[in-house]
Amino acid sequence: MPTEVAVVEEILSANDRIARENRKLLDEHGVLAVNVMASPGAGKTSLILRTIEALRDGLRLGVIEGDVAGHVDADKVAETGTPVVQINTGGGCHLDAPQIQVALQQLPLDEIDLLLVENVGNLVCPTGWDLGEHVQMMISNVPEGHDKPIKYPGMFAVVDAIVLNKIDLMPYIDFDLEAFRTAVRALNADAPLFEVSCKTGEGLEAWVEWLRQQRG
Amino acid sequence: MPTEVAVVEEILSANDRIARENRKLLDEHGVLAVNVMASPGAGKTSLILRTIEALRDGLRLGVIEGDVAGHVDADKVAETGTPVVQINTGGGCHLDAPQIQVALQQLPLDEIDLLLVENVGNLVCPTGWDLGEHVQMMISNVPEGHDKPIKYPGMFAVVDAIVLNKIDLMPYIDFDLEAFRTAVRALNADAPLFEVSCKTGEGLEAWVEWLRQQRG
Repeated sequence: MPTEVAVVEEILSANDRIARENRKLLDEHGVLAVNVMASPGAGKTSLILRTIEALRDGLRLGVIEGDVAGHVDADKVAETGTPVVQINTGGGCHLDAPQIQVALQQLPLDEIDLLLVENVGNLVCPTGWDLGEHVQMMISNVPEGHDKPIKYPGMFAVVDAIVLNKIDLMPYIDFDLEAFRTAVRALNADAPLFEVSCKTGEGLEAWVEWLRQQRG
Repeated sequence: MPTEVAVVEEILSANDRIARENRKLLDEHGVLAVNVMASPGAGKTSLILRTIEALRDGLRLGVIEGDVAGHVDADKVAETGTPVVQINTGGGCHLDAPQIQVALQQLPLDEIDLLLVENVGNLVCPTGWDLGEHVQMMISNVPEGHDKPIKYPGMFAVVDAIVLNKIDLMPYIDFDLEAFRTAVRALNADAPLFEVSCKTGEGLEAWVEWLRQQRG
């Protein structure tokens, strides 16, 4: 008589196991977490500051800032009175779930409705690491060029929303908006694309409204 | 009587071993190789095209293009008649020495004096991987913001030269040039800093002249 075969159905990596714990903790406290990803200098902190400004009357926000080094972004967020934790990855090129786990312990989760997590500036590595967030979004930007979806398809394909920032620079840059839109759509049929300027404020309302809806 | 202790003095990683072979091969053929690193959209291909334009009368150039996916950059280089090989890393966030080893087999090394290797757009990971190059350089750029040396110190600290691109956009962006210069100098006292616009051509002569001198 053959022995019974043990089937292990769901082997989670250490990161994914902790990401699941993070998500459970966030859910228990009614916090919606958003993973904000982009190249260096795409405007992650600028978008976070604009989002705080737009939503603070209706929602209580919190921020986790991820950087290889420094805390210039966290300082800017702290000035708004928003609870913020800075993670320095050392040489690490992305945030991971254990880092978020530690950061969550430093935040007043019962006083937060929406947690914005700014990942390390990197168009490749962050997508491979579940942090326990509920929403993944990315920022592309005009000076970076319209060919980014073709060169870095992975992130464009998996995110729930895409913001194209720095549209105020369009007159000074050879950026083919139609080519960008087409390339994005070929990779991701569903994610809304918000064309904005964090400098002038143009286009931000639609992004903020979408984010508010995710919170429910 | 105690046994003799074997001391292994220099344990190279697989990557470093192949990088050393690459460097030896390049040296045998009299090729100077330059690792071109930057964020996505900083202007790596634009600088390579400008450099080809400026140096092609005196030097024979070759190019290796590294991208996660696609070959838009290699196509642009090929249009200039320069020998070029495209490496697609799949999901990989940096080039490595084995990839370069394969690419070198595809290039006419006896007909190349200067080999420009465009790394994957990433300010963090590429510096950890020796390709066998002789010169490491990086491109920062104005729309990316003046705080990049503070947030991504690793690359700024190790490179032999730094190009600040897109200075033509300075009037439209809040970029503190003095703060940038100071932050760069704090990390790297020796690397020359070239402030250029690959769009207008401004400032490129000094970069090209420096590169010519590296070739000797």
